[in-house]
Amino acid sequence: MIGNEILDGIVLDTNSQWLINQLKALNFQVSEKMTIRDDTKVISKAVRRMLSAGANLIFTTGGLGPTHDDKTLAGVAMAFELPVEVNDKALKIVTRQYTDMHQRGMIETGEITEPRRKMAVLPKGAQPLDNRVGGAPGVILDIEGAQIISLPGVPGELMWIFDNQLLTLLKGRVEGVFTEDVIYLPLRDESTLAPIIDEVMQDVPGVYIKSMVKPYGESGIRLWVSSSGKSKTEVEERVQRVTNLLVKRSEEKLPKIDPSIDN
Amino acid sequence: MIGNEILDGIVLDTNSQWLINQLKALNFQVSEKMTIRDDTKVISKAVRRMLSAGANLIFTTGGLGPTHDDKTLAGVAMAFELPVEVNDKALKIVTRQYTDMHQRGMIETGEITEPRRKMAVLPKGAQPLDNRVGGAPGVILDIEGAQIISLPGVPGELMWIFDNQLLTLLKGRVEGVFTEDVIYLPLRDESTLAPIIDEVMQDVPGVYIKSMVKPYGESGIRLWVSSSGKSKTEVEERVQRVTNLLVKRSEEKLPKIDPSIDN
Repeated sequence: MIGNEILDGIVLDTNSQWLINQLKALNFQVSEKMTIRDDTKVISKAVRRMLSAGANLIFTTGGLGPTHDDKTLAGVAMAFELPVEVNDKALKIVTRQYTDMHQRGMIETGEITEPRRKMAVLPKGAQPLDNRVGGAPGVILDIEGAQIISLPGVPGELMWIFDNQLLTLLKGRVEGVFTEDVIYLPLRDESTLAPIIDEVMQDVPGVYIKSMVKPYGESGIRLWVSSSGKSKTEVEERVQRVTNLLVKRSEEKLPKIDPSIDN
Repeated sequence: MIGNEILDGIVLDTNSQWLINQLKALNFQVSEKMTIRDDTKVISKAVRRMLSAGANLIFTTGGLGPTHDDKTLAGVAMAFELPVEVNDKALKIVTRQYTDMHQRGMIETGEITEPRRKMAVLPKGAQPLDNRVGGAPGVILDIEGAQIISLPGVPGELMWIFDNQLLTLLKGRVEGVFTEDVIYLPLRDESTLAPIIDEVMQDVPGVYIKSMVKPYGESGIRLWVSSSGKSKTEVEERVQRVTNLLVKRSEEKLPKIDPSIDN
């Protein structure tokens, strides 16, 4: 996530949760997320660090637009010491978008001004990803055995590019199946649940159980059970078995919330 | 932010925006945010990296609870090669909280079981921060010229500790004043605004202007204008001057949205 508006609390980042959920559905595991400022050097360093931590797929969001603070592609280029240059395919996308907006009467001119042209300036060797919602193409760069995918920060544009330009590319790349379930237990106290979770995780290897305390407006505890494996049947059965066990053992051992007691 | 539930898209992180806004009001600038998994080594590395990037105040959120996946304090301890030990003051807080919950009939026993005791196990030299909303104390560690402040991930607990235990500590630490304003311009196209932003930023040094395109449910462009300085009057006047200039120049030069045109 690139953008001062997020680090300064102006905008709530909802993009990353959306993106993560799409990636999870494709069986990718996200190892970390960074949120950084609009600073070319900082962006460059962040990309390098993620690469050296072993990431083979790095998404950036934000910072692809026409203004002075849109520095993502300069940062990506710096990370690999690549020059930047106008990409013809990208320029065609930008031109088509502004011509179209102009024809629909949304903007006064479709002319490719300097700020608009900037959105077609890519690191050498990168390819644009079509954007039919806004002016800035997404960008994909294959380099050093990894892919750096840069998406705009505007949610509708990010979603459109992911769904229409990336889904096919990413589908099937990660083998295996991931499944998960979230169950609610009518309990008050996470600490009494801790030994039960440990027990079940020992009894059924290959699952991860995480308890989450009282989200807004809810009482009780949510348990999130997840598992990865080769076949759908295998992981689904495992998760099912674990959720059953958790419900059973917590019912046996723990008192439920008395709804008459104010929380 | 520490927690698989955020990296796996289960929970939307609203804590960091809240925390960032509190820090901004105290004139701190947040340089970056990382979201990482519940993994002791990963937590340790993240803390070290932030330190070496020059951070003198590092917040962690999440991972202070009683279950197997609560690893924040082990991670902080590992970052500084500190042993962990039961902290008497922390144990008193935990004991008081569970006794209280028991007396109010919320839990079956107030006994300090192993999982509850775990929440009083701190890196050696760290101090607990009282928590009167939940069981897990916050933790503050002064080390290597920096402060590592660990807060629970449950929003109500995080907010309580910040407001009641940290505000006085952090207030007045950063000199100077920060001010900002967000204005809405009834425009469609960020790219035509770019040269005006550049112009105004040159004309009035010491301000930062960032444009933000169409958030959900709104048309037009938001411009966020911010400035830091010594006196309140000085920065407020500067921001006011800039917002006036932006409105004036965009009115002079740019066509407004025609509301009859569908976006």
